[in-house]
Amino acid sequence: MPVNLTAPNPSDLHPVPGVKLGIAMAGVRKANRRDLTVVTLDEGSAVAGVFTQNRFCAAPVQLCRERLAGRTDIRALLINTGNANAGTGEDGLVRARASTIALARQLHLSPEQILPFSTGVIMETLPVERIEAGLPAAIADLKADNWAVAAEGIMTTDTLPKAASRQITIGGATVTITGISKGAGMIKPNMATMLGYVATDAKVAPGLLQAMVTEAADASFNRITIDGDTSTNDSFVLIATRQAAHAEITDLNSAEGQALRAAIVAVSQQLAQAIVRDGEGATKFITITIEGGRDKAECAKAAYAIAHSPLVKTAFFASDPNLGRILAAVGYAGIDDLDQSLIELHLDDVHVVTKGGRRPEYTEADGQRVMKQSEITIRVGLSRGTASATVWTCDLSHDYVTINADYRS
Amino acid sequence: MPVNLTAPNPSDLHPVPGVKLGIAMAGVRKANRRDLTVVTLDEGSAVAGVFTQNRFCAAPVQLCRERLAGRTDIRALLINTGNANAGTGEDGLVRARASTIALARQLHLSPEQILPFSTGVIMETLPVERIEAGLPAAIADLKADNWAVAAEGIMTTDTLPKAASRQITIGGATVTITGISKGAGMIKPNMATMLGYVATDAKVAPGLLQAMVTEAADASFNRITIDGDTSTNDSFVLIATRQAAHAEITDLNSAEGQALRAAIVAVSQQLAQAIVRDGEGATKFITITIEGGRDKAECAKAAYAIAHSPLVKTAFFASDPNLGRILAAVGYAGIDDLDQSLIELHLDDVHVVTKGGRRPEYTEADGQRVMKQSEITIRVGLSRGTASATVWTCDLSHDYVTINADYRS
Repeated sequence: MPVNLTAPNPSDLHPVPGVKLGIAMAGVRKANRRDLTVVTLDEGSAVAGVFTQNRFCAAPVQLCRERLAGRTDIRALLINTGNANAGTGEDGLVRARASTIALARQLHLSPEQILPFSTGVIMETLPVERIEAGLPAAIADLKADNWAVAAEGIMTTDTLPKAASRQITIGGATVTITGISKGAGMIKPNMATMLGYVATDAKVAPGLLQAMVTEAADASFNRITIDGDTSTNDSFVLIATRQAAHAEITDLNSAEGQALRAAIVAVSQQLAQAIVRDGEGATKFITITIEGGRDKAECAKAAYAIAHSPLVKTAFFASDPNLGRILAAVGYAGIDDLDQSLIELHLDDVHVVTKGGRRPEYTEADGQRVMKQSEITIRVGLSRGTASATVWTCDLSHDYVTINADYRS
Repeated sequence: MPVNLTAPNPSDLHPVPGVKLGIAMAGVRKANRRDLTVVTLDEGSAVAGVFTQNRFCAAPVQLCRERLAGRTDIRALLINTGNANAGTGEDGLVRARASTIALARQLHLSPEQILPFSTGVIMETLPVERIEAGLPAAIADLKADNWAVAAEGIMTTDTLPKAASRQITIGGATVTITGISKGAGMIKPNMATMLGYVATDAKVAPGLLQAMVTEAADASFNRITIDGDTSTNDSFVLIATRQAAHAEITDLNSAEGQALRAAIVAVSQQLAQAIVRDGEGATKFITITIEGGRDKAECAKAAYAIAHSPLVKTAFFASDPNLGRILAAVGYAGIDDLDQSLIELHLDDVHVVTKGGRRPEYTEADGQRVMKQSEITIRVGLSRGTASATVWTCDLSHDYVTINADYRS
């Protein structure tokens, strides 16, 4: 059961002028499910992306990197679920290329203008002939108001499609930002999570897009973790069709640039948090904030140590305020000269630990009350500086084991 | 159900001349269970230890470090289960000291000659008065052939006591090495695991003991992981009563020194592996060997990434050869310039991956056959050097979640 997450209402997802989406059933792994999505972008669109830092990155990720580095006229995305095309060696690259050649032929583009994305099981051969056979149906389905269906078309173990949309006004013109994401397991993005797409019609100078997508990833997908497993396929793409009727944004720090960045970060955070809310087996949505660190890096280290501790995660599943496990995780996070006698711990409004020890005023009943909530904030004070970092995660339940023990069967 | 582990047969555990053990029920956390162990060492014994690198180390660990640094005439160990005395601030130190003062009074020693050890729930106040009340019964029980009972007396979530023993001949004299350990969860020792004790009567120069305990820990307890959680209380202690009738060993590289070291490493590995075999919810014992690395450190990184991946661990629980998850873990292990096109993967005798991709000859049936075994070796070749490292771990099952969601209740 996802934590406080519902399927997006299609009418809440504003179409982005210049973007069309088409979805088909290609039978990549299973019959009768939407598993093939084509996204077309009008001429003049700009695209930037960030991709997994996993050295075992998938073939499509390698092609995306290559193509985004090589040219500025990307015109389509080709996304399949059911097969990750990772751990497939040289053959995987050949097949990823072949899938874009097939789409290019039908869209009258060059294959290099197409970015391929794959998600699903690792180390299986991509059935490129099925993808090719499914393309005409996906192309026939292309339309601007297809975001909700596309959100479904990229799901794997997700229980709900994930999408977010908002509109802002820049220079008197309405600007739309709409995005979709997927992911529920193998989630500890290191650059971006497995498949996030955000599109805007904002007229932003193409050269600014890479900085914007990096900023948005760092504030959203790079701050979530479900199981600490960084996927081989993580990809987060920002598209600007540049069709909005305002003067071009050429400075990210202008008022217009800042408004756009804030809206993109907000949409990205909503998409990233949706992944955690739909985390495999999740019953709790947990925000972990580390404060008082010397720098952001050590705060993030401590936050991830807590977020990845199976002992912390199972305690949250059980609503058991076994909070010493949080202290233990902070202690082994790798902050070498940490002074335990300065540590503070809050669970929402409950002050649990002071100066490294349990507060006499703290009662199990207070801890228990917070642990029973579906949304919980863990706040740890290191008391050695002014930096802070926040990470979002979920608990570890029986359903996580069930889902991952049964994923392929 | 522990994996190929049975309770030690008391008659297989050779007493170590100079060591006596006494066990009592003190009701530290629960009534009617053996939870207090006293170990006495004859005069002339040498003791060395390695302790958790968790910055949130427990009060008894702080005292052990202090006392082992300060003096060479340690004469007793005091071990309680049920309460870890960690995350207890200044008060925890006061209580740990008080427990050794009480034992010192009864044994006519100085408190500084006693090493205290605690294991159990974190962030609870140590009931020092109950420990004190339990001491006379433990002291009355002191005897040389009590190793099996002591192995039981230090258990927490362990389902079986853990002990190992062997005898070797040095300079014509019989030398005994006997040890006990405990641990089943919060296991990713960084120096040593929560409570391992190995004693020998070998006549070894006291100054050599620290090097020997470090070597043994690095080859055993520092190579196991259950859940990646480094405990606040990990302690591994090597005792030499020095009563064996051979000439003193003053050189670790002499034939005698090497024989003794090998026997101590073997006993330590057996004790460490017993902890993994009894890992919380474990159904499989998994050996992970990384070969062909540039150095041991990068091999260990990759091995731990595999060993800590919840996705890998649940696949092993399910006997599902979803082996791409192993490649993904190697990919995010943090080896920055890893070339995925050189990776080889074997599962026992089955060659699964070559040059970063699935071998055409590999079949699911072959993978499945190995995955169903209770003991499995994962062998990854990085093909970039000659270093290697091995880590032992277990799978992640429903019972792990159940045990850790219910631990305190």
